Amino acid sequence: MSSSAPSRLRSLLNHLLPPSPPSPHEQEQQQGQSRDQQQQSPQPPPQPTPPHLSHLSPTFFLERAAAIEPRAEAVYHVTANGAVLRRSYRELADRARGLAYYLRKRGLRRVGILAPNTPAFLETVYGVVAAGAVLVPVNYRLKEVDVRYILEFAEVDCVVVDGEFEGLLGGFRRARPGVEVVVDLDTDATEGELCGPFDEAVLEGLLYDQETGSKGWADLVSQTVANEDDMIAIPFTSGTTSKPKGVVYTHRGAYLASLANIVESGLNVPDGRCKYLWTLPMFHAVGWTFPWSVCAVRGTHVCLRKIDYPLIWKLLKEEGITHFNAAPTVNTLLCAHADAEVLPRPVRVTVAASPPTAHLFEQMTNLNLLPVHVYGLTETYGPITRGYMLPEWDQLPKNEKYGNMARQGHGFLTALPARIIKPDQPEGVLVDVAKNGKEIGEIVFSGNICCKGYYKDAEATRKLFAGGVLHSGDLAVWHPDGSIQIQDRAKDIIISGGENISSVALESMLVEHPAILEAGVVAVPDSHWGERPKAYITVKVKGKGGGGGGGAQTDLRGAEVIEWARTHSAISKFMVPREVEIVRELPKTSTGKIKKNELREWAKKGTPREALVG
Amino acid sequence: MSSSAPSRLRSLLNHLLPPSPPSPHEQEQQQGQSRDQQQQSPQPPPQPTPPHLSHLSPTFFLERAAAIEPRAEAVYHVTANGAVLRRSYRELADRARGLAYYLRKRGLRRVGILAPNTPAFLETVYGVVAAGAVLVPVNYRLKEVDVRYILEFAEVDCVVVDGEFEGLLGGFRRARPGVEVVVDLDTDATEGELCGPFDEAVLEGLLYDQETGSKGWADLVSQTVANEDDMIAIPFTSGTTSKPKGVVYTHRGAYLASLANIVESGLNVPDGRCKYLWTLPMFHAVGWTFPWSVCAVRGTHVCLRKIDYPLIWKLLKEEGITHFNAAPTVNTLLCAHADAEVLPRPVRVTVAASPPTAHLFEQMTNLNLLPVHVYGLTETYGPITRGYMLPEWDQLPKNEKYGNMARQGHGFLTALPARIIKPDQPEGVLVDVAKNGKEIGEIVFSGNICCKGYYKDAEATRKLFAGGVLHSGDLAVWHPDGSIQIQDRAKDIIISGGENISSVALESMLVEHPAILEAGVVAVPDSHWGERPKAYITVKVKGKGGGGGGGAQTDLRGAEVIEWARTHSAISKFMVPREVEIVRELPKTSTGKIKKNELREWAKKGTPREALVG
Repeated sequence: MSSSAPSRLRSLLNHLLPPSPPSPHEQEQQQGQSRDQQQQSPQPPPQPTPPHLSHLSPTFFLERAAAIEPRAEAVYHVTANGAVLRRSYRELADRARGLAYYLRKRGLRRVGILAPNTPAFLETVYGVVAAGAVLVPVNYRLKEVDVRYILEFAEVDCVVVDGEFEGLLGGFRRARPGVEVVVDLDTDATEGELCGPFDEAVLEGLLYDQETGSKGWADLVSQTVANEDDMIAIPFTSGTTSKPKGVVYTHRGAYLASLANIVESGLNVPDGRCKYLWTLPMFHAVGWTFPWSVCAVRGTHVCLRKIDYPLIWKLLKEEGITHFNAAPTVNTLLCAHADAEVLPRPVRVTVAASPPTAHLFEQMTNLNLLPVHVYGLTETYGPITRGYMLPEWDQLPKNEKYGNMARQGHGFLTALPARIIKPDQPEGVLVDVAKNGKEIGEIVFSGNICCKGYYKDAEATRKLFAGGVLHSGDLAVWHPDGSIQIQDRAKDIIISGGENISSVALESMLVEHPAILEAGVVAVPDSHWGERPKAYITVKVKGKGGGGGGGAQTDLRGAEVIEWARTHSAISKFMVPREVEIVRELPKTSTGKIKKNELREWAKKGTPREALVG
Repeated sequence: MSSSAPSRLRSLLNHLLPPSPPSPHEQEQQQGQSRDQQQQSPQPPPQPTPPHLSHLSPTFFLERAAAIEPRAEAVYHVTANGAVLRRSYRELADRARGLAYYLRKRGLRRVGILAPNTPAFLETVYGVVAAGAVLVPVNYRLKEVDVRYILEFAEVDCVVVDGEFEGLLGGFRRARPGVEVVVDLDTDATEGELCGPFDEAVLEGLLYDQETGSKGWADLVSQTVANEDDMIAIPFTSGTTSKPKGVVYTHRGAYLASLANIVESGLNVPDGRCKYLWTLPMFHAVGWTFPWSVCAVRGTHVCLRKIDYPLIWKLLKEEGITHFNAAPTVNTLLCAHADAEVLPRPVRVTVAASPPTAHLFEQMTNLNLLPVHVYGLTETYGPITRGYMLPEWDQLPKNEKYGNMARQGHGFLTALPARIIKPDQPEGVLVDVAKNGKEIGEIVFSGNICCKGYYKDAEATRKLFAGGVLHSGDLAVWHPDGSIQIQDRAKDIIISGGENISSVALESMLVEHPAILEAGVVAVPDSHWGERPKAYITVKVKGKGGGGGGGAQTDLRGAEVIEWARTHSAISKFMVPREVEIVRELPKTSTGKIKKNELREWAKKGTPREALVG
């Protein structure tokens, strides 16, 4: 970081964070000035020819929001130092612009971000891309060695890191001492010790812009990009079975996915602005493109450093949250939490990451948490299908209605239709399964909401796109109405006595038991049947106190569950689990998926002592 | 038309218009069948390589809607024979598909449509493009000679014409006897005499598809197009001063414009479906892309053969209309109509075509007709800017609030920012005016919501895009907050004693007079001042009875208006009109713009007798 005189810092900070909105007269002066300067150096952003084609890039959404409604609240956040921070769109855009010029000044082209859901993360999403650089979001729940692997593999020349997670960079920094590291302290400070290197970088960039002609956004990659098919970001898969893979996102793909997310989740609130709560990690598939979708409609990003159920309920009740996205597991614990209450106004909850149960959707709806059920992969910018609710379902019995809602549905607005293909064909041969709700095949996608491929991995990319479609690795049935419904990950399906058992379907049925909170089902070897299902379950706490986590205050025994499953009308005899083990908590990935690998390990080597109940 | 046996017709009609929705079992059979056939001839729609890029085309929205929600109501319409017609998305998609195969069978590549807002128009929008042909919508209010000019110029090889307007085709048919003409009778009949050639063509196409392998949508141009920059339609400008010009729309442009219209007008109604009332003519800029936007969200198209104020009020009150689009003049007459009532639920009204007044927006808002103020040209697929309402305006005095709403605002979601350039520069030199709300310049656009050019008119295209931006020909000021506000068409500005007088601004102020309904202001030559403004006005009917049209039941005299204008705080001395003439009705274009040319003629030659009051 260059050292800047404190007085200069302060004067820039005053520009950055104006104590009060400027008068129209001040605005006029500011804007007149930058206009004049543009006139002196009449260099419009590089325009493709002909003029009716501009390359799509979602970074423009921030510049545009700040131009239309500079004073609108862009960010609400409780910082690491416990303060409530609010930033306007002008401030968010100014800070992103500062970061962009900082990166440009230093010639940085590939920027890692290792942070929870903070304002600095949002600023990095925009600032990095505006500088013409590529964003590499990293899961801060990974181990140091994995963080190092990803940052090295992605060839970053700069990392923005949240102060809490700086330690995770140790290995990488030792290996690559030349890489620029910018630490964000996530505070509300605008000067003094709490104002960390990230803030200083922003200021340095703003100064640099000022010194080099105050070109502002006009000289950044915002309104248009050299080629919309260029790389914008490389998020990584969670890599449960192998090394994480870098997924190549393009400007065009991110743009079209974020437009679809606006429409599908209804972020364009009539007569108001959405208040979007960041429960979904921003690092995960670049937050399913919502950093862009929310700015496109000038909504407020309500940032959250971590999942904190009492805080979430407080924000839902007091801060007028209109939308959030979360995995079924987060919603399950949210609904079961002691602070749960029916909300006075509906909140749209976009649900994905693993197949939700009908039971969960019923619980959510009862609390006025209205589900928008989507499905996708890191390889599809997050959501690429949606379970569209049909008005006529309101006439159906509840279990059917919520059962229909739990289907993964149809292709997204800007996607092409999802297909389900027979899994037993030679690689690259695509034969659709029957639309009978029974035949199981693999879900495949094509079109603009598919990633461009895996970074530096031609062989994995070839496999991903075998036959010209994107292979999800998820198994599903195709219903007569054209909707798809996931049965399992290919590796999670249980084959018992020649019958396919969907672990997802079995889990969905088990949580209908009044005492069961969550269920994870895996195959265990069986000398007679080949495989048989084993269920790990957590139980609801008695009464309602005690938080949303799994607890042990119940007398439920595994044998009772097995007995109950035998009498459950929808559980076929061959599906009844032979073993049920009650545990404190299920192992989960950072995005809330149950780690089936770990459950299989438990089944093989015995459940670890700390997971056992009692 | 090929003659088909009546029984065959009936059986196909039964397929087309099923008496009741099929059971899931029936669906399964139908879909299983077409699946099998697809498997036998495994030819997926032509896919561009690589698989993450699919060419954008809005025709897919209909196929997709019918796949997701086949029973949703796609069309509500009072037909030419006075029946209420309702069609589901399955029916709409089937009929469009039938038309597509009809065109394909006959090798037709360029199809004119001359019809009011009927279901056949919608089916033609989709069917023509699905056949890989190009759509040429024609204004049915033109004279026979102009209709002929457009159809010949656009080289159509087929015309779909509404029965009521068949006469307008006379000249064209005599000149081009070889061109296929398909007449739509706009009835609810499915057989018999009332079932006209258009229905027969649809059936012939469905038969043809059946006979050639039942490939359905898979073999049409829907999910993807060969090149998204290809021509999709050629709507024509109204051509008030010269021959109408054909405007080249592309698949990509139409797709991105229609996505923006969903978000900006809020067609994605939460927990329901939009009911969109077709007051805007579909022929005008392909209905501002709303034939596509509404299907994208599976809304209902409520079609209207003509503007009928009592019927519109009835539909607003009884049919749960959620949205419509209309020019200010239509809204003015709607608000002034005897049936006007405050609606119980808000209806979103997207307003454009000529600059609305603050006064109109106040009236509309009071009736719960909430304006979405947009601005654009035929050359920009209709809307390309929007006057975004800011929450803080609610704190302003009413005249300021509605005055702000009347600004044309900022660039649309999928557009690039509008600019205003100095008009006195050499052609192609772009210098922005100051953002001071005073300096007048020309509005120019660039980016994806600009047309590709004028059909077969290289010189006009060159002028349109001089300097690499699309020239609107509209004069405006740029406010300090970045919003634009139209002052006039370049040719309508009045220059009096060296001062610019905006006819639009003067009209806005005149309608604040309690007795004035509408005003049209033009320049008349003046030996001393060069030009001076002359106003033509219509007055409100006394009391409330008597319909929304201009009337004469008032004692208002021109001299009183002039006197009143002198005392109006916002009308500068030099702007006060020297002459005010009260007329029965103002001459308007089919899209509701006041015909300034005609008013200038009146000023020159005297107001025609039939327009005079009394």
